[in-house]
This record gives sequence, C-alpha cells and structure tokens, in this order.
Amino acid sequence: MKTIIIKNVELNGEPVDILIEGNIIKRIAGYLPDEADVVIDGHKKAVIPGLINMHTHSAMTLFRGYGDDMPLMTWLEEKIWPSEAKLTHEDVYWGAKLACLEMIKSGTTAFLDMYTKFSSIAKAVEEMGIRAMLSSTCFDFFQPEQREKAKTHVNKLFAEMDNYDQRIQFALGPHAIYTVSGELLQWLDWFSKENNVPVHIHLAETEAEVQYSIKQFGCTPVRYLNQLGMLSSRLMIAHGVYVDDEEIQMLADSGVKVVHNPASNMKLGSGIEFRFAEMRKAGIPVAIGTDGCSSSNNLDMIEAMKLASLLGKGWRKDPVVLTANEMLFAATRQGADMLGIKAGRIEEGYLADLCLIDLNLPAFTPNFNFVSNLVYASNGSCVDTVICDGKIRMQNKRVPGEDEIMERTAAIAYNLIKK
Amino acid sequence: MKTIIIKNVELNGEPVDILIEGNIIKRIAGYLPDEADVVIDGHKKAVIPGLINMHTHSAMTLFRGYGDDMPLMTWLEEKIWPSEAKLTHEDVYWGAKLACLEMIKSGTTAFLDMYTKFSSIAKAVEEMGIRAMLSSTCFDFFQPEQREKAKTHVNKLFAEMDNYDQRIQFALGPHAIYTVSGELLQWLDWFSKENNVPVHIHLAETEAEVQYSIKQFGCTPVRYLNQLGMLSSRLMIAHGVYVDDEEIQMLADSGVKVVHNPASNMKLGSGIEFRFAEMRKAGIPVAIGTDGCSSSNNLDMIEAMKLASLLGKGWRKDPVVLTANEMLFAATRQGADMLGIKAGRIEEGYLADLCLIDLNLPAFTPNFNFVSNLVYASNGSCVDTVICDGKIRMQNKRVPGEDEIMERTAAIAYNLIKK
Repeated sequence: MKTIIIKNVELNGEPVDILIEGNIIKRIAGYLPDEADVVIDGHKKAVIPGLINMHTHSAMTLFRGYGDDMPLMTWLEEKIWPSEAKLTHEDVYWGAKLACLEMIKSGTTAFLDMYTKFSSIAKAVEEMGIRAMLSSTCFDFFQPEQREKAKTHVNKLFAEMDNYDQRIQFALGPHAIYTVSGELLQWLDWFSKENNVPVHIHLAETEAEVQYSIKQFGCTPVRYLNQLGMLSSRLMIAHGVYVDDEEIQMLADSGVKVVHNPASNMKLGSGIEFRFAEMRKAGIPVAIGTDGCSSSNNLDMIEAMKLASLLGKGWRKDPVVLTANEMLFAATRQGADMLGIKAGRIEEGYLADLCLIDLNLPAFTPNFNFVSNLVYASNGSCVDTVICDGKIRMQNKRVPGEDEIMERTAAIAYNLIKK
Repeated sequence: MKTIIIKNVELNGEPVDILIEGNIIKRIAGYLPDEADVVIDGHKKAVIPGLINMHTHSAMTLFRGYGDDMPLMTWLEEKIWPSEAKLTHEDVYWGAKLACLEMIKSGTTAFLDMYTKFSSIAKAVEEMGIRAMLSSTCFDFFQPEQREKAKTHVNKLFAEMDNYDQRIQFALGPHAIYTVSGELLQWLDWFSKENNVPVHIHLAETEAEVQYSIKQFGCTPVRYLNQLGMLSSRLMIAHGVYVDDEEIQMLADSGVKVVHNPASNMKLGSGIEFRFAEMRKAGIPVAIGTDGCSSSNNLDMIEAMKLASLLGKGWRKDPVVLTANEMLFAATRQGADMLGIKAGRIEEGYLADLCLIDLNLPAFTPNFNFVSNLVYASNGSCVDTVICDGKIRMQNKRVPGEDEIMERTAAIAYNLIKK
C-alpha cells in the first residue's frame, strides 16, 4: 500500500508526524521515521480535516456572476433557467470540474450536491479525486406525467451506482415543496427507506415559500413534510431559515439534519435569522454549505464558516455564540457524520482526507489561536496542500491541470449564454 | 522622473496600456510604446484603484485572535486593555508594519487609522510605502487633568507633522462620547476648524452607547454631537449603526461622513442594521472599513466590500440593494475623496495608487462581470501587484521583507501578553 508521511505539522498547537497508509490515517505521533513513498514537510503548516460543503449545485460555477444584484424571480426567469435549459452533459462535466478545482483550492474534500446530469458530475468528481454525495434535482411541477418520468429517472440513476468509484454516494434530490408534489415526495421517501439512501431538499428558505405552504397546504413547510411523514433521519434540509420552536422540536425528534447557507441567505435576501444555537441545543446536526456559485458566489468553506459565525453573532447581538470551534466542527465532523463517511477528524483510523494550512501569512500572525485565525482572519487561499482518500490532490497551492480546467470552463460558459 | 508601463491590462473589460510617470497615472490608451523604466505584463490581470480602508486600529494586528467569542467588556478588561497598557513604540511600530503588509497583500493603499504612538505608526507606513491619515486616540475620561494632557499631546503631534512624508496625513481621534468629555470634544472641534484637519470618532456603534448618551446627555449620540456644534464636513464617524431618519438628515445637512464596518459590527454583536442606502440617498458619503484586527479579525477590504453588501441585502431581505459596483465605489473613490487625496480612480492625472488583480483564479472563472467576481467571489488573495505613489510595493503576491515582518511581529506579540 502506498504511504505518505507528513513531518512536523501542527495539530492542535503541537508538532506531530502523520503517517498515511493507503487511504487511512495510520499513525500520529511526536516522531515517526521518514519511511514512506512520499514525505511532505509540514513545517510552518497546520493540519485540519478536509472541509465538507454540505449544500451546493456544483456546475453552477458556469453562471458565476451572471446576473447579480437582481430580484430573485427576474434573475431565475431571465438569466438562470434559460441558460440551464441549454446545458449539455459536456457543459455540466466542465462546470463540476471547475467546482471541484475551486473546492480543492479552498480545502474542501467532500460535498453534498444537488444538480442535473448525475453521471457527468460523478465523472468530474472521480477525476478530481474528492468525494461527493450527489442528488439529482427532482421536480414534477405537480404534473402526473412529469412525476412518472422523475420516478423512472431516479430508478435509472440508482441502478447505475455500481458504475462509480466508492467516493461517489447517492441521494435523492427533491427540489422544494413548491416544485414537487406531495405524491412524489412520499414516493421518494418510500424509495429512500427501501434503499437506505438520504433525501436532500430545499426547505423553509424564504418567506415566500412559507406563505405558499400555508396557502397551498394549510401549514408551514416543516409541518407539511411532517404531515407527509417525511421527517426522518434520512432527511437533510438545506436552509431551514424559517422554523419555529415547535418545528425545531419536530426536526430534532425525527433526526432530521440541517445545512446552513449563510452567504446565500444574505445575498438573495432570503432571511438571516437562522437558529443555529437553538437547533444545536435541541440536538439537531447542523452543517454548513456555500450553496451554488450563481447565488453565493464561491465555494469557499472557510469564508462560509466565518459568515455563519458573524451573521449569527450579528443578528443576535451576542459576540459569544457560534464560536470558531463550533464552526470548524460543523464544517468537518458534522458534515462527515451526515455523509456517513469516517472522515472529518485527524485521528488514527480515519480517512486520509485532510488539508495543510500555510501559517506563513498575515492572517496567522500572531497565532495565539489557530482556529480563530482560520475562521475569522483567513479565507480559502491559506490552503497549501490537500490530500483526499490518501492521495495528494493539491500541493504548493497548485492542482494539476488547473489552467486547462479554468480555460475550458470559461469558454463553455461564454458559449452557453450566447446559444 | 521614473516611469512604469503596464501592458495589456483589463480596465472595465477592455485591454489597455497604462503609463505611470512619477507618482501620477500619465496616460491610458489601447496601445502605448514599451518605453519606461519598468514594464509590467498585465495579461490575465485587471486593474483597480488601490482600496481604501477608512477605519482601523493598525497595530492591533498584535492582538489578532487574542480573545475571541467573548463578551465585549470581559474581552476589553481582561485581554485588550491590560496588553495595550504595556505597548512600547517598538511594539506599535511592528504591529503597524504587519498591518501595512496585510493591507498591501490584499490591495489596500491608504487607510484612516485611530491608535496610539503616532510617530511609530507614521514610520511604519512611510517604510511600507502606502498612505495613511493617522488619528491619535484621544481620551480624557471626563478628568480635567487628562483633558489638559490630551490637548498638549494634540498640539505636539500636530506640530511634528512637517517631519513626515506627504503620504502621512493628520486627523484628530476622540475615542467616543463615553470616554471624551464635551469640553474636550468642543476643543478638538475648534482645533479642527482652526487648522483645517479632520476629526475621526466612534459614534452610534452600540445600543449601550445610545442608552448611555440618553442617560448622560439627554439625547442620542448624533444629537449630542449636534448640540456640541460638532457636526461638520470635517467629521468622519466610524460605525453610525444607530441613527434615525432625523439624524441621517442632520448628518447630511452638515456634511458629516460615515464609515461602515460590517465585520466588526457583526462579530462584536454591535448591531447589523446599518442604513447604507438611506445615508447614500440623503447624500452622505459612506466609505467602508475593516476595524482593527482584534475585533474583525483581518484587514481585507475585498472581504469588507462583500460583507457590507451581503449584510445589507440580508437584513433588508432585498437582493437588489448595495450592488457590487456601489461597494467598489465606497472602497475606492469615496474613501479617497474623504481623505482629500486625488486617488481612487484609474484615470489620467490621478495618483498612481493601484492594484493588478490575478484573473487566473476560479473566482474569476467565468468572468461575465469582473466587479461582481471581485466583490462576491474573491477575497484579498487575488491581488497580484500593488503600486502606491508610483512605486511597486508588491509584485507576484510578494512584498519585500514580508517574512521578517511576520516573524518579528509574532515574537513581539507573544512577548507582549507574557509581560
């Protein structure tokens, strides 16, 4: 089995040597002999688990900056939907490659995606060497024929899972309660239970959604899913901005997981009073996501941790809540646990998914508190080296082939909006 | 006079050549001959004006990450004030050097500072080659003897201004209405008028300050300064979070300028509903600052632009307000106008204070809208080259002597908290 040794790297403020064997962190000790296929010098670097981005739409890198500062519906109807309708597998493949590149460059080694053209995204993730749980966005717009097509598509995608590397996981991706009928939601929940796969959905994101839910279904979004019998430990909701105390208890009691997307919630004006502290207190797992690049507009999880903390402190007027350590937990262990992978920790026996952080930067000077500097002072550019599944995906801030990915994807994006 | 030519750089989406002669942008054209002392290749780069950080406490880089996630008064009383009491001129000099380094690396070429040990900060700024308007923090704690000391100190500092490079400007820096008496505030206002120098003060930052003001002075902070006769076009207030419609009109009518500090307002839980749009509508100049590194915790003005926009869109639930272009205006032209320097624009005849942005990054891929990518997708790490006052201060993301500055400052900071 191939081995990597990282010498003299900071872990929780102490220098250690780390031995990676195959795809596993095999040994962590004050000193280990330099006997390995690859030796990495960890001096002036700190090691953290690879970050986990728990909500994005990977190939929307293609639409980065294409229509900002616009009203939501104008932006969707005039900019995003017409362009998305023209997307080919080739487009999505390159968009997802760019997303993986951007994630690797900012320290992310696994993500939960919701988009279209599953196989092309899977291929991009496989090639880039990171992990993803992919949910294919699922709609029926309350039309029976669309519903049957959606079911057929889900069955087909799930049947194809054996084609992929073990780094690719499957999830169901109903878009939202205003685009997916109750019938389809319940079928997806049945499928999820039958095949033991997670369900990922946008929920309780905007006031408009809450008003729609009350008008159409007679109750708020979380209560609606509860009535459908969909709240379970297999459900991972993105956003969850609009939830009251009783709904928090419902989510907690049923084991539902929540993903907070601070940049997107701010930039789209969706709402900022995400109840992180109350959810954690109730025992709900809360992870962090960036959302897609056309809403938030990058995939930088270090920035996302900062925004989550600052926004939470800000709207509560409380500098003590949502600490840097809690944010790092949410962006690593919590995400890994939600994906069901043995990662998110720098501990023996865990997957070798990790980043080396360049400490030779003003953001880490002085370095009284590494986690505080990481979350509050730094950003994704501090990531020097990324290892995922025991293989080096970036070293010295360069990913093999990055120039080609940027050039090809830019050309595709420019072409796409001209089509 | 020394000349620099930048070839083939993007300006507002078009490739141009830029000739710098001495410290001035002399010519901008589609093609200029390569006749200059220095030729810079601008291919795959965009030019922007040097960013202007309109509120910081430079040497507080020394306390970065030293006590985060704490209640404000505990943090000040147990962490910051005891350490600040021990600061020497040498400490402040190195803290300010680190601040300048961090600013240069993230594209800032001028800043408005409020701190202590004026001459040491001035020396650091002179050596690092950027610009600063320095206000020495001024307190009297309502004590007559402290007041006289403060006046003497102001007179001394002002008399010494001829010692400094023209890149250093003077301002008065009364700390706040709860640390400086009305008598001293009025004397400072008289001094400001007499000598035509600006006044910089923290104002209307927290609810606690508003309550204090009402209790002590019978009115809100802006009204209190109005009663003292202090509202004028020489006044630049930091924060201004708590202002009502009538106060906005008072500020507008008297020509007062405001500096928004989104990161600090969020992280310290001061309040987030900064009324950027209303102030601009009333005609108030609004610039952006990072605040000091012990509260916000970096000096990255690209991040500050993003936070200002996202926070404003967020609390208003309006994705259309506070556009990327407005943020870039606030962080460049507006700041320059407030400092009274002919900078903040890439135009012939303006000061050669500018940055080249590396476009070969995921954040600028695709590049449908450069300003959107700069503000929403990027961060300070995209800055490749910085020119200030016609001299190259950073090239290829490296500032001469940066390793020594980080090492020396870190050692000083660690020593300081042990003293």
